[in-house]
Amino acid sequence: MNPHVIAILGGTGHEGSGLGLRWAKAGHSIIIGSRAAQKAQAAAAELNGKLGRDAVRGLDNAAAAQAAEILVLTVPYGAHAATIESVKDAAQGKIFVDVTVPLVPPRVSRVQMPAAGSASQEAQNLLGPAVKVVTAFQNIGAEHLKDAGQPIDCDVLVCGDDKEAKAAVIQLAAEAGMRAWDAGPLANAVIPEGLTSVLISLNLKYKVKASGLRITGIDA
Amino acid sequence: MNPHVIAILGGTGHEGSGLGLRWAKAGHSIIIGSRAAQKAQAAAAELNGKLGRDAVRGLDNAAAAQAAEILVLTVPYGAHAATIESVKDAAQGKIFVDVTVPLVPPRVSRVQMPAAGSASQEAQNLLGPAVKVVTAFQNIGAEHLKDAGQPIDCDVLVCGDDKEAKAAVIQLAAEAGMRAWDAGPLANAVIPEGLTSVLISLNLKYKVKASGLRITGIDA
Repeated sequence: MNPHVIAILGGTGHEGSGLGLRWAKAGHSIIIGSRAAQKAQAAAAELNGKLGRDAVRGLDNAAAAQAAEILVLTVPYGAHAATIESVKDAAQGKIFVDVTVPLVPPRVSRVQMPAAGSASQEAQNLLGPAVKVVTAFQNIGAEHLKDAGQPIDCDVLVCGDDKEAKAAVIQLAAEAGMRAWDAGPLANAVIPEGLTSVLISLNLKYKVKASGLRITGIDA
Repeated sequence: MNPHVIAILGGTGHEGSGLGLRWAKAGHSIIIGSRAAQKAQAAAAELNGKLGRDAVRGLDNAAAAQAAEILVLTVPYGAHAATIESVKDAAQGKIFVDVTVPLVPPRVSRVQMPAAGSASQEAQNLLGPAVKVVTAFQNIGAEHLKDAGQPIDCDVLVCGDDKEAKAAVIQLAAEAGMRAWDAGPLANAVIPEGLTSVLISLNLKYKVKASGLRITGIDA
């Protein structure tokens, strides 16, 4: 594998920490980003404790974005635009993986996309054309990630307009124990983002914690 | 099971014929609808030949809708609004299953929804609130249906605002050999409709004929 420096912006939450732990185990260098550097350092220390070595550090989001090659955004939708603005300069020319799901509480089981069509398209609009925005991991709930040894019974749909960036993210998913698929252009990001509301709806209706989805009909 | 009279509007195509054959085998009475009654009668005769008995008849769309309890729309998106207008009166008070995928050729692997948010929401707007619009079966390609004995490795996402209508469609899916899920309100119809473009994208990219999806994490 090809080790990368990956910044996980808003990485103090369960989703970002879960991804960070799996990528650190795979050999990548991880930077947890947060609005407050101290909070990021605390989360990094916790992950290093689980790893038994120092592969994770914590910085504020802008410094994390500056120091990394690949940026991964895992914030609640309410912090989406502001976090993007805070890393816009540092992100130029880089791969930017948007994991954000544009949920509108309290009706989180209803698909409600922003005017841009999806959070990822909104990110592309805010970041400008030089940033390689890729959408991925929205359907992998924190419940799936909490135990880094646990297999994940959910595929990852990857959308984006840059083929090489998508291939890199599909590779990162595989290194974190997930099967990922090239699901088309960034215009298709509404599907993985909106599927999260469908999965929340299924979780509520069928009383489970972590429904997911698998693609069929393709030999992987 | 509870036998229904089901009209499949635009049912002369592969998708409608495939569903009709499976439901006829399950014991339902099927009416194939088409713009031209003669074309519908020819398709019905072909299905009766496969069944070895007369369980299918053909009528023009308006007459088919009038004679049935449950209407299923399987037309190309270009014929969506016009077909709905032609059956609007006959549909009042009934379950209306919209199978239409709003593809915009030539870019059929790109999600491109109509202004209403999805074809199914557009159908609801055109038909009025007394019609129980349910969205289903968009991800089951004709390739999956062509052999009525073949198991289908793809789940059905069912969206709608009427719970009993959704339950009836989930039951119909089961009788046709498919596992179906209540995927939330009609506002979520963008997901099954748009997933078809994602599956087309996967078919092209991974050189297969019929990719599909399965829901995981729920004991069915």
